Amino acid sequence: MSELPIAPVTRLIRNAGAERVSEDASQELIRLLEIEAEKIAGKAVNLARHAKRKTVTKEDIVEATR
Amino acid sequence: MSELPIAPVTRLIRNAGAERVSEDASQELIRLLEIEAEKIAGKAVNLARHAKRKTVTKEDIVEATR
Repeated sequence: MSELPIAPVTRLIRNAGAERVSEDASQELIRLLEIEAEKIAGKAVNLARHAKRKTVTKEDIVEATR
Repeated sequence: MSELPIAPVTRLIRNAGAERVSEDASQELIRLLEIEAEKIAGKAVNLARHAKRKTVTKEDIVEATR
């Protein structure tokens, strides 16, 4: 189930220069962004656990993408 | 300026197993996701133009990530 709302993702595609954006284009981009988010977040959760913290911090997200 | 709202991105990190998520962690993930979205959307816009279409379609998004 997706979490990201469609309107801001459609705006991101418009900001890239699109005159019009089909709804399934936005939904496909949501799908791809959530896969990416899950990968990064999963690594960040492991890094926080490794540091014996309950809170995922900005540093965990940064380190997760290194 | 960011488009994605913070609450659904925080939920994505929680869904990955985080007990707690700092606000700047969510903001950093938003920043990274929007960079990714801009890359994909930019390519998709070029593909739509190349096909002489005004509408960015799902197929453009899919092709942009190949």
